[in-house]
Amino acid sequence: MKKNILIIPGDGIGQEVTTWGKQALEAVAQKYNHEFIFDEAIMGHTAIEATGDPLPDETLEKAKASDAILFGAIGHAKYDNDPSAKVRPEQGLLKIRKELGLYANLRPILLFDELLDASSLKPEVLRGTDILFFRELTGDVYFGEKNRNDDNTFASDLMNYHRYEVERIARKAYDAARTRNKKLCSVDKANVLETSRLWREVVQEIAQEYPDVETEHMFIDNAAMQLVKNPKKFDVVLTANLFGDILTDEASQIAGSMGMLASASIGDGTGFFEPIHGSAHDIAGQNKANPLASILSVALMLDIAFGLQEEAKLVTTAVAETLKAGWRTGDIANADTASNKILGTNEMGAKVLE
Amino acid sequence: MKKNILIIPGDGIGQEVTTWGKQALEAVAQKYNHEFIFDEAIMGHTAIEATGDPLPDETLEKAKASDAILFGAIGHAKYDNDPSAKVRPEQGLLKIRKELGLYANLRPILLFDELLDASSLKPEVLRGTDILFFRELTGDVYFGEKNRNDDNTFASDLMNYHRYEVERIARKAYDAARTRNKKLCSVDKANVLETSRLWREVVQEIAQEYPDVETEHMFIDNAAMQLVKNPKKFDVVLTANLFGDILTDEASQIAGSMGMLASASIGDGTGFFEPIHGSAHDIAGQNKANPLASILSVALMLDIAFGLQEEAKLVTTAVAETLKAGWRTGDIANADTASNKILGTNEMGAKVLE
Ligand SMILES: CC(C)[C@H](C(=O)O)[C@@H](O)C(=O)O
Ligand SMILES: CC(C)[C@H](C(=O)O)[C@@H](O)C(=O)O
Repeated sequence: MKKNILIIPGDGIGQEVTTWGKQALEAVAQKYNHEFIFDEAIMGHTAIEATGDPLPDETLEKAKASDAILFGAIGHAKYDNDPSAKVRPEQGLLKIRKELGLYANLRPILLFDELLDASSLKPEVLRGTDILFFRELTGDVYFGEKNRNDDNTFASDLMNYHRYEVERIARKAYDAARTRNKKLCSVDKANVLETSRLWREVVQEIAQEYPDVETEHMFIDNAAMQLVKNPKKFDVVLTANLFGDILTDEASQIAGSMGMLASASIGDGTGFFEPIHGSAHDIAGQNKANPLASILSVALMLDIAFGLQEEAKLVTTAVAETLKAGWRTGDIANADTASNKILGTNEMGAKVLE
Repeated sequence: MKKNILIIPGDGIGQEVTTWGKQALEAVAQKYNHEFIFDEAIMGHTAIEATGDPLPDETLEKAKASDAILFGAIGHAKYDNDPSAKVRPEQGLLKIRKELGLYANLRPILLFDELLDASSLKPEVLRGTDILFFRELTGDVYFGEKNRNDDNTFASDLMNYHRYEVERIARKAYDAARTRNKKLCSVDKANVLETSRLWREVVQEIAQEYPDVETEHMFIDNAAMQLVKNPKKFDVVLTANLFGDILTDEASQIAGSMGMLASASIGDGTGFFEPIHGSAHDIAGQNKANPLASILSVALMLDIAFGLQEEAKLVTTAVAETLKAGWRTGDIANADTASNKILGTNEMGAKVLE
């Protein structure tokens, strides 16, 4: 198989972690005789520094022309502390999501037995948890009209959904639920928000097409609570852009660390694969970042974008074996981890490749 | 001291739990020679059934005329599953918050040592946690203009904040931080939302007035994660209406159960005191609900509305002693709790009064 893969390292630890995602892809290509042709492009703070634009046209063109994108991370503290900055790294990520029509963001909460102890949740609460989030990614208050009045005394963002936006992601989530435990939980705030009431109506309609899947509707406040209380009860979780952002970060604690979670954004065109962690500038360039989420993003790419299930499985297994052998990065180590088992980014990446 | 207290039981378990809140108030009145004059009013589903209006004028008038309000819970599954219902119980709660100008919702996460084991989080993660949430309560996407187009293909809610709305709650939160550990974490999504950028700007300004308080700004997704990972790191958390709704429900798991958390809504006029739990229709009328959140809401009322610190302390201590003696309601019991120590609502209420 021949594929063009665009690597967008982005900001902060993005460079370090995508290096290992790329190497995992190269290892797979060699072993299975695929031809992966790599190109690289800039986005975010890195792109602002170089061109003034968080998503240069060249990056967007390359993205559209590629078969899949491996992305690192985005963001920089400089903008976080300056709410009045007009040009911001995140605009690059939001724009590429929109331009590529990446309306479905899949975030599997994959639990490695070896990491049960790395979580702040009790092992007995975690054991057996297996959740697949479908977060809507190109609508909601993220993309609604923004306003600020002239004297800076008022600001607004329009939260909104179109029926078709809810339909298409709901179908994708129901399709996935069918191949899993046949349970779907749709999360909204229909007791307060009109947007959520439309969301719920549409999901209720689509549910009719999937009588074999058990549907539950839950308010976001309750879901945020249940996810900590009893994560096992969830199978597929379907939710809007903002609620999905919050819930999946919260759920990262189930997997022991944000450094473990991969995500796939799919939709109309090229698929986009990225860790859910951020740019973590505080540890960037220090060989401390956990490369596993980037490597697991590669597994999602192989599976979802290229249909290479066997290859995807190999990558996931390599990560599992490395953890089983006791190797850890700092974020997933615990008090019992021997210090000689705690690795840097590069050493951890190399262990997985072995 | 002579005070007029309005009891609004609301829906579901609201009736059962406020009964015990009221009895706690009566016990305090007797012991300390106060005169508490009680009245009762309807709201929510109960009020819709009786009058067609989730907040009848009579209730609002009584509320405005009283010195403090003890509220139960609101909501009914009937409306939850019918997103097209025009009249909804929650409208009553939202309207009374707005009409009474209850812009600051204080939600203390009070950890009783005895309940460390009731949580799904590890005791060592929890121990020492003491968080006070300031949730803005009369603005945000809760109260922004709602729209639905004629053919039901589009819905929207306007997320928005005025500068003065952020200022007044920020000051209240900073004042509280001063009397505590002098740390304030303001939670927003300033990397995406204009509303959050205004929020952050204003908090940065108010922070100048409180140089003795350490200020941190955190994105909501990160906060939802940190709250599970390391709750101890928080002292005062200041956030908007929607984010506060989500974070405080999530934080209820720190306290072992939603059944333990009380809240105080304050602002321009009469204070409003309520558990953060919902109407829980599935267990309503079964003598199963945990009355402690209502009793702890009374402690907040005594403290905040009436300035009766000693009386408030007595109520909190009575709850702590009851837990220390091993008594539990079902929601806070764990596998090790002897079955004869698990009480119903009424028995638990009576134990606390003893
Ligand atoms: C960086 C930010 C814009 C982004 C989001 O909120 O979508 C991130 O948190 C994510 O979850 O991918
Ligand atoms: C019932 C609902 C409208 C309410 C809210 O979202 O504010 C509740 O969840 C709360 O937290 O008090």
